[in-house]
Amino acid sequence: MAGEKGSHISQQFDAELQDVKHQVLAMGGLVEQQLADAISALVESDSEKAERVVTTDYKVNAMEVDIDEECTQIIARRQPAASDLRLIMSVIKTITDLERIGDEAERVARQALHISDDKDLSRQYVEIENIGNLVRQMLNKALDAFARTDAEAALAVAKEDRKVDIQYEAITRQLITFMMEDPRSIPRALNVLWSARALERIGDRAVNICEYVIYLVQGKDVRHTSLEDLEKGI
Amino acid sequence: MAGEKGSHISQQFDAELQDVKHQVLAMGGLVEQQLADAISALVESDSEKAERVVTTDYKVNAMEVDIDEECTQIIARRQPAASDLRLIMSVIKTITDLERIGDEAERVARQALHISDDKDLSRQYVEIENIGNLVRQMLNKALDAFARTDAEAALAVAKEDRKVDIQYEAITRQLITFMMEDPRSIPRALNVLWSARALERIGDRAVNICEYVIYLVQGKDVRHTSLEDLEKGI
Repeated sequence: MAGEKGSHISQQFDAELQDVKHQVLAMGGLVEQQLADAISALVESDSEKAERVVTTDYKVNAMEVDIDEECTQIIARRQPAASDLRLIMSVIKTITDLERIGDEAERVARQALHISDDKDLSRQYVEIENIGNLVRQMLNKALDAFARTDAEAALAVAKEDRKVDIQYEAITRQLITFMMEDPRSIPRALNVLWSARALERIGDRAVNICEYVIYLVQGKDVRHTSLEDLEKGI
Repeated sequence: MAGEKGSHISQQFDAELQDVKHQVLAMGGLVEQQLADAISALVESDSEKAERVVTTDYKVNAMEVDIDEECTQIIARRQPAASDLRLIMSVIKTITDLERIGDEAERVARQALHISDDKDLSRQYVEIENIGNLVRQMLNKALDAFARTDAEAALAVAKEDRKVDIQYEAITRQLITFMMEDPRSIPRALNVLWSARALERIGDRAVNICEYVIYLVQGKDVRHTSLEDLEKGI
């Protein structure tokens, strides 16, 4: 009987952990949507869509607070150890980054509110869209690696950040040239530059999420470890 | 006897919690030093000091990983509840922000490596120093509020962020005017602008730390709550 009761409790516990994981993925889904909307609002100068991103950010924040609370309760009630505890720790860290990605998406949307359709900067918008697509894919794959607890996939995503950095540097150089040639464009060009910067940071945060997945699988903290060293470990 | 053993264990547990708190404050002290050095490296065009900030950042990272590990072990061994668990959760969140403040300080230091003594921008350097002093004070007081678990002090610090935002907007406007008047200055002016941005973000992160202190004291999550509403609760 005791054994049955034990397995019953552990089934409940498993269900709770699964539930937390689902909540993280739901939060991730909302953040992905916010990011997609922010980028298209900027690129298409769609101020209604931009407003929607800004007013929806509170939902992301509320999800973070709820999941944090859920994790605290699980720790207090279930006293998780080993991989269960690592899952909870990964969740706590992951949702912090997801919330901040939501903030960056909101920043991009706010830039979109300042920018009206601007033919001069059309080439830069294409670049913003490219960087945007890269980081959207990174975020999507990072959440996928989290869902499947797949360290190899997580490492592959982390490697893609290099591409984002290269594109970010290219667009920065373009915008500087642009501003120097036409100083009146400076305020508008800076809006595009801030957006590029926000997207670049989202790439960094997607890498953070990947590092938590690797920690979850391997049980060791791999933040601040080079990609080369990480690769040897997997 | 059981009682004595119990109090012995609880004394050890208290000592562990105190030790974690001290580690957070030590990490905070190092981050404060990094921030002070980064600002003076930028303002005084001291590239040696800037290099030192960049090469010291790994220490901040290592402290974060150690404290995280310590917290995970305390959760697994001690199964903390109520205010003890809240302390651990606050620590986990606080060190994430401290580590990111360290990263922002490193960013400021990297800008200092690009900027040689620049008479034209001397007024802007004064402004950077002003913003820098404001956020240094905020960080110092936030860590103080954490050390003394003082929610009222934490709220007072959080309110100061408004001043940082106002100064940041002022310096941004100045720099835009400066760039429009002298387009050749754009690359240098952007370095100053990135530094101002990094300092503004540090202010936001000091506010985060204050919010964890309030959570620790009040047992409720106050992130994403307005300052006015916070004030009513304290």
